Amino acid sequence: MQVRISELSAASGVPVATIKYYLREKLLPEGARTSPTQASYGVAHVQRLGVIRALVDAGVGIAGVRKVIGVLEEPPENPYDLLGAANAAVTPAVSADIDLTAALALLERMGGDVEKCFPDQIAAVAQALAALDRAAFTVPDRVMDAYLTHLSAIAEEELAATPETSIEDAVRYVVLGTALVEPLILALRRVAEQVAASRRFGGALTG
Amino acid sequence: MQVRISELSAASGVPVATIKYYLREKLLPEGARTSPTQASYGVAHVQRLGVIRALVDAGVGIAGVRKVIGVLEEPPENPYDLLGAANAAVTPAVSADIDLTAALALLERMGGDVEKCFPDQIAAVAQALAALDRAAFTVPDRVMDAYLTHLSAIAEEELAATPETSIEDAVRYVVLGTALVEPLILALRRVAEQVAASRRFGGALTG
Repeated sequence: MQVRISELSAASGVPVATIKYYLREKLLPEGARTSPTQASYGVAHVQRLGVIRALVDAGVGIAGVRKVIGVLEEPPENPYDLLGAANAAVTPAVSADIDLTAALALLERMGGDVEKCFPDQIAAVAQALAALDRAAFTVPDRVMDAYLTHLSAIAEEELAATPETSIEDAVRYVVLGTALVEPLILALRRVAEQVAASRRFGGALTG
Repeated sequence: MQVRISELSAASGVPVATIKYYLREKLLPEGARTSPTQASYGVAHVQRLGVIRALVDAGVGIAGVRKVIGVLEEPPENPYDLLGAANAAVTPAVSADIDLTAALALLERMGGDVEKCFPDQIAAVAQALAALDRAAFTVPDRVMDAYLTHLSAIAEEELAATPETSIEDAVRYVVLGTALVEPLILALRRVAEQVAASRRFGGALTG
């Protein structure tokens, strides 16, 4: 397949003006010149556009998209570094001057090697704990244990399902699986709470 | 304890002007009149202010706060209704014209009685699934099963820890446990993914 930009637009559902923007921003590689004013684009361009759109739809900014594209263009040899780079690209930066003590203690309880986590990820945990503190809300020990145990189990399943078909597929899975699945996880948790409550309290919902 | 508004402000850390706003909005009950221009406030006012501030800090709007206060002032007899009302107060409304088919199928897989869930909660699941669809991202079956199983287990532990000391305590726990714990859950999931990746791939992080 070698097509013109108008056909690339039709195939990907991305407007021509947006494709030109991505070309200028170097998120999308140049097409092959076919004349001084025309270029042709191939399957790789369609795939790349799919990744960009999915990231943008997931709320990742252009800077984050650029980082992910960087990982795609120079993929690390180790899949672990790949995951880390993709994950870091979609993790918002957190204020650096936050006390990490409680977060680090939690990570040890999770059985994680703190050296293997990214500072922004640890800081995000610390920030969430600080917000709970400010509200004088204590997560009961048993509940915190449940978070650590079950989120670890979820992560193991997620990792085990990483596609091995291509680097692009793996990055796409990791990035979207991180950013785009979050609303699903939160929505399912609220439903699960409702289901658990109805089971626990008999669930005499009126109407 | 019966104090003036300035002392209530000092005890709660909430500015006097904000306390007056809450009084005008009837989120906080009137104090006992001690003179034409003064009133005195008690322990119940300090507690109520704590709930309001925690909600506001958790990103709940004044309308949501009002709903939660409504639950506090006229608590339903059944704890299940209490949880539902508190949960609904902090669940953003979702567009009504969304296809619920896939969401309902998921809830059945979770073993939940669909009749016992709130429409907004089901719509939130549907909305998250639709976003995944638009990005052409498929959650592998085993991973989805892991979400359902482990989020249900988390919800059971959360519910089991609901305090029975007072209605205010229970509502506070449910509302804050829903809204305020979400960032913690997402942050822990990202760390768990990193830990799982380092376990799976050997974790040769450079540096």
